[in-house]
Amino acid sequence: MKHIAESTVRRLSLYLRFLEEFESHGHITISSGELASSGGTTSAQVRKDLSFFGSFGKRGLGYSARDLIAAIREILGLQHPWNVVIIGAGKIGAALAQYRGFSGRGFKVVGLYDNDPSRVGTKLEGVTVRADAEIEKDIARLKPQIAILCVPAEAAQPLVDRVTKAGIKAVLNFAPTPLTVPAGVTLRAVNMATELEILAFSITNDVAV
Amino acid sequence: MKHIAESTVRRLSLYLRFLEEFESHGHITISSGELASSGGTTSAQVRKDLSFFGSFGKRGLGYSARDLIAAIREILGLQHPWNVVIIGAGKIGAALAQYRGFSGRGFKVVGLYDNDPSRVGTKLEGVTVRADAEIEKDIARLKPQIAILCVPAEAAQPLVDRVTKAGIKAVLNFAPTPLTVPAGVTLRAVNMATELEILAFSITNDVAV
Repeated sequence: MKHIAESTVRRLSLYLRFLEEFESHGHITISSGELASSGGTTSAQVRKDLSFFGSFGKRGLGYSARDLIAAIREILGLQHPWNVVIIGAGKIGAALAQYRGFSGRGFKVVGLYDNDPSRVGTKLEGVTVRADAEIEKDIARLKPQIAILCVPAEAAQPLVDRVTKAGIKAVLNFAPTPLTVPAGVTLRAVNMATELEILAFSITNDVAV
Repeated sequence: MKHIAESTVRRLSLYLRFLEEFESHGHITISSGELASSGGTTSAQVRKDLSFFGSFGKRGLGYSARDLIAAIREILGLQHPWNVVIIGAGKIGAALAQYRGFSGRGFKVVGLYDNDPSRVGTKLEGVTVRADAEIEKDIARLKPQIAILCVPAEAAQPLVDRVTKAGIKAVLNFAPTPLTVPAGVTLRAVNMATELEILAFSITNDVAV
């Protein structure tokens, strides 16, 4: 696999959000300066981020908002919707299953799983919690490519092994433990305590991070 | 403010978690190689990360787990507990208020606020939802330095203005909108849709991020 800096992809996502907002207000063209301020960066960085993926805009005329939206959606792979499964229907898993921000961006939660019989069968915003024994069958049937893991640390690695074996290509890990995935599978982790530790570090040392 | 790469601080947080686990199993000394594998990095990177903050360990003898835990806790500012307020008691805010991983790392949720009267007064794991009109008084009294913002996009900027004016020094933003903060205040954003977009990008382009 090639490597592209996460920060570049993160900025593309920000630019896209800003462009969609911008276009919804009836604006047609946008300058790299306007895009830069949306992402808290510089015009030069915007041009560099975009040039990585092709040639966009005309010198002195700015970018067509519509064209740039289409281009960034294609770069990010958002021209088609993505099916997502959530493993673990505890508080974080349940909150994510009901998060409206996903469907608006083309991510559809097609399955939510738990091993607690008291949770199985409960319905959260149209998604019914299913027994974790159903995971493999459902992945074969619904072909999700992304799994969000919201289980306790000790349950996480066996579940990642199961979902990647069943065909999942990318995992977002909320379990507070490092995981390993097979080659070709992308793994990202969100750790809430780490986020607060970074803030604590910043206040303690009076440094920006 | 000086700038230190977020990735460095993130690795320190990972090393600390691993060291505590390691020490709890009765181990006394640890090599940079063992630490490196915990953070998915190299021995050279571990030595570089630590040398940034002082001189640790003895060549050929590795690090004392106990000393390194104390040193990293001090670097991150975790020698004392931190009071945290959560603004917004919707699904994400409620899930975070009940997240056990915070108290274990020294982050104490001392306030949870909402402007929905049907939520005010409900109790979540020992924290009672309070009216958002109480925010300023509570910050003056309880002196939290960190606020977690879990409100809709349109409500976010006015609330950030209020909490920073009241004395909050760092904000973790879950609202899906960019925010501005006064100089000297640290702002970090967690956007769930962006996390999935980075995964979609990775699958689509077959690149690691």
